[in-house]
Amino acid sequence: MTQTYRTERDSLGEVQVPASAMYGAHTERARGNFQFTALKLSDFPELVVALAMIKKAAALTNRDLGVLSAEKSQAICEACEEVIGGQHHDQFVVDMVQGGAGTSTNMNANEVIANAALAHLGLPFGDYRVLHPNDDVNRSQSTNDVYPSALRLAMLAGIGPLKAAISSLVAAFNEKADEFRPIMKVGRTQLQDAVPISLGDEFAAFAVTFSEDCRRIDEVAALLHEINLGGTAVGTGTNTPTGYAPRVIEELSRISGRPLRLADNLIEASSELGDIVMFSGMLKRIAVKISKVCNDLRLLSSGPRAGIGELVLPPIQAGSSIMPGKVNPVIPEVVNQVAFQVIGNDLTVTLAAEAGQLQLNAMEPIAALNVLQSMRMLSRAFEHLAEKCVRGIKADEQRCASLLANSLVNAVDLVHQLGYERAARVAKHAMTFRCTLVDSLCEVEGLSYAEAAQLLQ
Amino acid sequence: MTQTYRTERDSLGEVQVPASAMYGAHTERARGNFQFTALKLSDFPELVVALAMIKKAAALTNRDLGVLSAEKSQAICEACEEVIGGQHHDQFVVDMVQGGAGTSTNMNANEVIANAALAHLGLPFGDYRVLHPNDDVNRSQSTNDVYPSALRLAMLAGIGPLKAAISSLVAAFNEKADEFRPIMKVGRTQLQDAVPISLGDEFAAFAVTFSEDCRRIDEVAALLHEINLGGTAVGTGTNTPTGYAPRVIEELSRISGRPLRLADNLIEASSELGDIVMFSGMLKRIAVKISKVCNDLRLLSSGPRAGIGELVLPPIQAGSSIMPGKVNPVIPEVVNQVAFQVIGNDLTVTLAAEAGQLQLNAMEPIAALNVLQSMRMLSRAFEHLAEKCVRGIKADEQRCASLLANSLVNAVDLVHQLGYERAARVAKHAMTFRCTLVDSLCEVEGLSYAEAAQLLQ
Amino acid sequence: MTQTYRTERDSLGEVQVPASAMYGAHTERARGNFQFTALKLSDFPELVVALAMIKKAAALTNRDLGVLSAEKSQAICEACEEVIGGQHHDQFVVDMVQGGAGTSTNMNANEVIANAALAHLGLPFGDYRVLHPNDDVNRSQSTNDVYPSALRLAMLAGIGPLKAAISSLVAAFNEKADEFRPIMKVGRTQLQDAVPISLGDEFAAFAVTFSEDCRRIDEVAALLHEINLGGTAVGTGTNTPTGYAPRVIEELSRISGRPLRLADNLIEASSELGDIVMFSGMLKRIAVKISKVCNDLRLLSSGPRAGIGELVLPPIQAGSSIMPGKVNPVIPEVVNQVAFQVIGNDLTVTLAAEAGQLQLNAMEPIAALNVLQSMRMLSRAFEHLAEKCVRGIKADEQRCASLLANSLVNAVDLVHQLGYERAARVAKHAMTFRCTLVDSLCEVEGLSYAEAAQLLQ
Amino acid sequence: MTQTYRTERDSLGEVQVPASAMYGAHTERARGNFQFTALKLSDFPELVVALAMIKKAAALTNRDLGVLSAEKSQAICEACEEVIGGQHHDQFVVDMVQGGAGTSTNMNANEVIANAALAHLGLPFGDYRVLHPNDDVNRSQSTNDVYPSALRLAMLAGIGPLKAAISSLVAAFNEKADEFRPIMKVGRTQLQDAVPISLGDEFAAFAVTFSEDCRRIDEVAALLHEINLGGTAVGTGTNTPTGYAPRVIEELSRISGRPLRLADNLIEASSELGDIVMFSGMLKRIAVKISKVCNDLRLLSSGPRAGIGELVLPPIQAGSSIMPGKVNPVIPEVVNQVAFQVIGNDLTVTLAAEAGQLQLNAMEPIAALNVLQSMRMLSRAFEHLAEKCVRGIKADEQRCASLLANSLVNAVDLVHQLGYERAARVAKHAMTFRCTLVDSLCEVEGLSYAEAAQLLQ
Repeated sequence: MTQTYRTERDSLGEVQVPASAMYGAHTERARGNFQFTALKLSDFPELVVALAMIKKAAALTNRDLGVLSAEKSQAICEACEEVIGGQHHDQFVVDMVQGGAGTSTNMNANEVIANAALAHLGLPFGDYRVLHPNDDVNRSQSTNDVYPSALRLAMLAGIGPLKAAISSLVAAFNEKADEFRPIMKVGRTQLQDAVPISLGDEFAAFAVTFSEDCRRIDEVAALLHEINLGGTAVGTGTNTPTGYAPRVIEELSRISGRPLRLADNLIEASSELGDIVMFSGMLKRIAVKISKVCNDLRLLSSGPRAGIGELVLPPIQAGSSIMPGKVNPVIPEVVNQVAFQVIGNDLTVTLAAEAGQLQLNAMEPIAALNVLQSMRMLSRAFEHLAEKCVRGIKADEQRCASLLANSLVNAVDLVHQLGYERAARVAKHAMTFRCTLVDSLCEVEGLSYAEAAQLLQ
Repeated sequence: MTQTYRTERDSLGEVQVPASAMYGAHTERARGNFQFTALKLSDFPELVVALAMIKKAAALTNRDLGVLSAEKSQAICEACEEVIGGQHHDQFVVDMVQGGAGTSTNMNANEVIANAALAHLGLPFGDYRVLHPNDDVNRSQSTNDVYPSALRLAMLAGIGPLKAAISSLVAAFNEKADEFRPIMKVGRTQLQDAVPISLGDEFAAFAVTFSEDCRRIDEVAALLHEINLGGTAVGTGTNTPTGYAPRVIEELSRISGRPLRLADNLIEASSELGDIVMFSGMLKRIAVKISKVCNDLRLLSSGPRAGIGELVLPPIQAGSSIMPGKVNPVIPEVVNQVAFQVIGNDLTVTLAAEAGQLQLNAMEPIAALNVLQSMRMLSRAFEHLAEKCVRGIKADEQRCASLLANSLVNAVDLVHQLGYERAARVAKHAMTFRCTLVDSLCEVEGLSYAEAAQLLQ
Repeated sequence: MTQTYRTERDSLGEVQVPASAMYGAHTERARGNFQFTALKLSDFPELVVALAMIKKAAALTNRDLGVLSAEKSQAICEACEEVIGGQHHDQFVVDMVQGGAGTSTNMNANEVIANAALAHLGLPFGDYRVLHPNDDVNRSQSTNDVYPSALRLAMLAGIGPLKAAISSLVAAFNEKADEFRPIMKVGRTQLQDAVPISLGDEFAAFAVTFSEDCRRIDEVAALLHEINLGGTAVGTGTNTPTGYAPRVIEELSRISGRPLRLADNLIEASSELGDIVMFSGMLKRIAVKISKVCNDLRLLSSGPRAGIGELVLPPIQAGSSIMPGKVNPVIPEVVNQVAFQVIGNDLTVTLAAEAGQLQLNAMEPIAALNVLQSMRMLSRAFEHLAEKCVRGIKADEQRCASLLANSLVNAVDLVHQLGYERAARVAKHAMTFRCTLVDSLCEVEGLSYAEAAQLLQ
Repeated sequence: MTQTYRTERDSLGEVQVPASAMYGAHTERARGNFQFTALKLSDFPELVVALAMIKKAAALTNRDLGVLSAEKSQAICEACEEVIGGQHHDQFVVDMVQGGAGTSTNMNANEVIANAALAHLGLPFGDYRVLHPNDDVNRSQSTNDVYPSALRLAMLAGIGPLKAAISSLVAAFNEKADEFRPIMKVGRTQLQDAVPISLGDEFAAFAVTFSEDCRRIDEVAALLHEINLGGTAVGTGTNTPTGYAPRVIEELSRISGRPLRLADNLIEASSELGDIVMFSGMLKRIAVKISKVCNDLRLLSSGPRAGIGELVLPPIQAGSSIMPGKVNPVIPEVVNQVAFQVIGNDLTVTLAAEAGQLQLNAMEPIAALNVLQSMRMLSRAFEHLAEKCVRGIKADEQRCASLLANSLVNAVDLVHQLGYERAARVAKHAMTFRCTLVDSLCEVEGLSYAEAAQLLQ
């Protein structure tokens, strides 16, 4: 079965494109030029959809401002609708890792939409004399405003699922907090027995820490609503009709259902990834926090017998290929690892942002890949942790109680009655002689058992 | 000359403390235990002052709630006032890098303030029977609420200078933006000539990017106003009198002049560095942006003859030990390096935050050191860049004009008239034959010189 | 068409496995438990092959030491051979990102190989009474020695392609170095014109820097040859027959064709990722270097007219969707981005390594994913840079010559004749009055034109 | 008391220098230009000494090659000897954080040595007509070969103390390994009870991991012996007499007592920090490992009663300002924090290395500061850990024994006798019913107590 081709041309010459492909010459070259990962644009449908929304907003604005015929605009809009609706995603074939500041991403969209529009006009793929990827679909646009704007839209699309996943974990922790409220246990600082605490309060703190993150996400996401569409090549609006920028933003807000704003300074916005760095930094913050919580869950469930053992995590798979009966905290472990990936990805984003030069940041594609992946992996991590772990956690009440009873954490109650120094002496004696605080009080302070017990009430 | 000593005791035994030292046994041990850097607490006066403010707020609250005598409270407050006023800072001798979650920092403050208070009471240093570092100065407190709260206060104290430094740079860029507004030049994307741009607009974009950062700082700084003072050891308020937490926060707000808030969940707040991570992430964002701007300044001033040469930076020192007359962009270079340090420091902060365990984060001291240093270095960097570089920048107008005239950046204007493909052919011909766009238009499109010139108006 | 299933059991109960699947209960659970990325084990064939080699080596050793029947050993070996030969890779379905320290990876291998072996014995999938994934395929092994050993083998397999890619770039740079040797140009330090240099020497330096890296790779790769196979769960060799460890290493060396060594201390080796950190650090070093070189290529080809313009990179795609004729340095740009990814990945590896606890590092899977991806992406980056960029680079000799002639870089020659201070005065005068060094010498030093010219010979 | 000044001149004009200062105009400007940290060159005596060694080697070589008079050479050498011997270090006043690629560091050395030499010649400070900082002290040199070479020498000087500190920790761990050899305990993987292990073996693994690092240090340090002295500005040896480079390396080897080599390609070596990145990456590796070990020590000593409690760390200070008797693992904690600093510093080094451009890396000063600080902090960390912690660790034998006896870790022994699946069922039953393995064997497998006990022998 032979593949057939059509011939397209660009400024570098002729290119053979598969006859059935909706993409064109530029995309075909880009496929060959960038072969780094298995991750194509199509693996990030939120980005593909965002591109189509932008192309539609531009087509409508161009028509209204008289630089695109109603017929062409109509055809382009229909093509965009198809992409927004989930069609043609398989035609977005360029590697997410690419040079050219996203030009190949933008051109992939231009070409697919042009050919989809041509189809609507009853014309064959590649017949760009009537409707051209650059002259018509990309009209009044540049990669340098389309790509950054699409990335922000894609990120905004990912925020809903992320927040939902976080909220699901918050709910799971809150349920457990209620369930575990009556269980008193040893609180630990620096891994040393410190003062009594309720297991429920410990879980409530987990819930609080992530519910706060949902508010942080909203705050930082506000920055992502400020986009540079209409600035074209360097933010000066080259090749846009008068009044274009505010109108296209308005259209795009309507199409996307999001309250987008035109960036205050389009030149600044063209080369700036500060909002992405900030957002990625916030993802890093979330990663750091969830990693800490997973470390705690693993510590508290350590054992079953030679560890802390206050918690029992739900077993979801056999733990070992050699040690029978061993069940490991695999979900917290994998969430830790996701956190490490997010922290590493944040560094990549940082490096990309720092590498902007003059009127553009050409390194935005790697930032895009990393921040979108971090969002996705974090969403999954929160879901996994909620559903496959936290909801099934059981407390070992007996263990909590016996560790607490056996501990010296009530020494803190002696401070006000004996002063810090005498209290410390009592505690130290108990440590040295492996006895209880009451026994130690009797011995060191010369109290009767009853007096000693009373002091510790 | 022999040093004389006094003997103090703690739960580990006797310690010889220099007779004239206002610190005591714990601090003396900590001096020996932690010898990592040349950076002592006293090198961070904002932290020392914050500790004294907290101790004063606690002394007042303890008095009001009846757990500290008026006389002791008075003596402690006077001692704290002295520290706030700048006295005794040389007594804060512990290395900033320390184990124990800041216990040695807190105890250094407790001991110095106890002895200063003893002096007010006419008693010798070390006579803690009357007024005790732990029982009185540290009353109703724990390192685990004092240290985190002091760090936030110290950071808040550093925000004013940081914003002032940023504003100074913003002003400098804005002045230059006005001065350079009429100078048209080649805009560049991906280091390739792109479209015309005003040099003034380029500088205005620099101003915008940092003025936005001042708003971001305020937003994130809001989180730092939420502190855990009153939670003591693990957030449960162990050993505090009823009503202590809200009152001590109120006192501290008054003393510090900052609108502090009690954290919603004190258990969560005790182990959580999320706000520090967020703030450090924002410093990283600023670092990334200033590094990009310095890269631009170095690019635009590259030359003097074999580079871009559009800018002339003010010479502030001879550039080379071997190449006479060479003047280098030393201020942007050093600012780049400060940015790299801030980015590295952010990683250290991140690692410290991730390492919290259960009811505490014992790694807060290294986070404190790194975030405070980053704030200070960034403040200096903005000042240096404004005063020693940007204010003295001159444009080479002649160079800007000749590069622009000689370039092909007006090819973009042909797109609407010829379509993208024909315009690209014209541009490519000009490149290949090293001719002007007008010449190329004549040749490729068969236009007369006048027609060609007209097209490019 | 309905999918049919078979029922398998593990210690947690029954699992429905697709009837045609060669994997079993553990893998099926793991598929559900870990859904983070699109990257399955099968996307890393070097890892799959390594696992099969280990299983084969174990089967042979177990047979020789009398703990596995010849018949089972034979069946397992045949199954392993199939995997090594490329069969059944599609059955390695677990997400690369997983909890459990790689248990699911090991079990996926155990189950696929068990079922392939059962097929050889004429038995149906899942009939483990005869030949069991744990009891037979995993005999004398634990995830904790299999997974680390397989990762090292997989990395070793990736080193050949990486070195070949680097060598290809070195060759490309060397060819260009020869071609460009006679072209003298301005050497630049701190982006300022410094002293003359040959363009060929500049390219030769690029070649040298990467040829050195091949030697470094070999040095660090030596560490990867030291593996812990035979240590089983914690390095004590639990459940291995006497003499097992050295023999299985010998078998594996033979099968893999690599000179593997048993780690000196198996307990240390079980929890240690130091060699991975070191190797990843070396990849980071390579990334840093190639990023610097790409920055240079982009700088030197900046322009075409308003930049340095000494180099012309081969155009491989149209550069802009809006600016006709623009050709961008897309290959260096994408290589920069790969470098940023590798640096970020190194951080993830670092975090994973730091998170080892007691007798194991449970975070090895994320380290594995990141280091294998970095190797692959770097290999591609070197190939792309060599083939799609460097080999096609042209020098603009005319530009090199005119920039050099017009520069002041010969001022350095005056130092020995006039002393540093007078030479600096001459250079400064030339800068200020935009004249040549000869003119400046005449004016400042009062020389005749001939004398001045002579000084600069 | 009024400070008096002398007037010096450089190409930018006149500078007032304190009359008693041995540094001159350049240094004075640099003091004002760079005010970022409290860390001066004098805080890194190994760097100051390295600079003086280089200046001496150059003076001798210049004399031998006839470009410096014997008298000047002699005076310079005597001045250098003084610096090498520890004099005049207080005159090295420039901030370690500086622009200009180290020019100010090099000029500080040139000026101090020039004035010290003038003093030897009986001339006043600043009388450079006779002996000039640039023309004589810096003869045949450039910052671009002096600074990189001095940094490598300074790093080599720090390697001895680092290795000694590591060896001290290795010895401490080995002693404890011997002491703890007979103590059997629960080995843990993924924080879950796994199989029995000897506490001595656990400590021996700690010793092994760091003794290996000493070998790695030597391997990577080999790269630091390759220096670019003689390459001057860009590696072409501009302004050096014939034969200079190999001879000055030979002199410097003799003076420093180190087997230095001239870099193979001086152009490459001028802009390359690959060896620094590699060395810093190795420090990061050490940091990762020591952090893991400290985490282990903190885990194993967690308690005293509600944790693992197998180890008792020596108390070196009271642990808490509020909880009497609490003793915290402050030394492991501070070592963790040092590790985090080293990892952060490595990122700064990486960023600096990546920012090299064309013929130079202007960001070397920040790399220098970070790598030298990391070396110093790590050395201290190893010393502290050895002396203040490991040597005083005690095992709680009783605790080790009871945890082991109470655990299910012997289930692994059942695998060969019952097969993995039946063994897992027995273990699971013991878990569920909180009974011993023997009891579970009786119940699940229907064995008599004696048979069951026998199986677990």
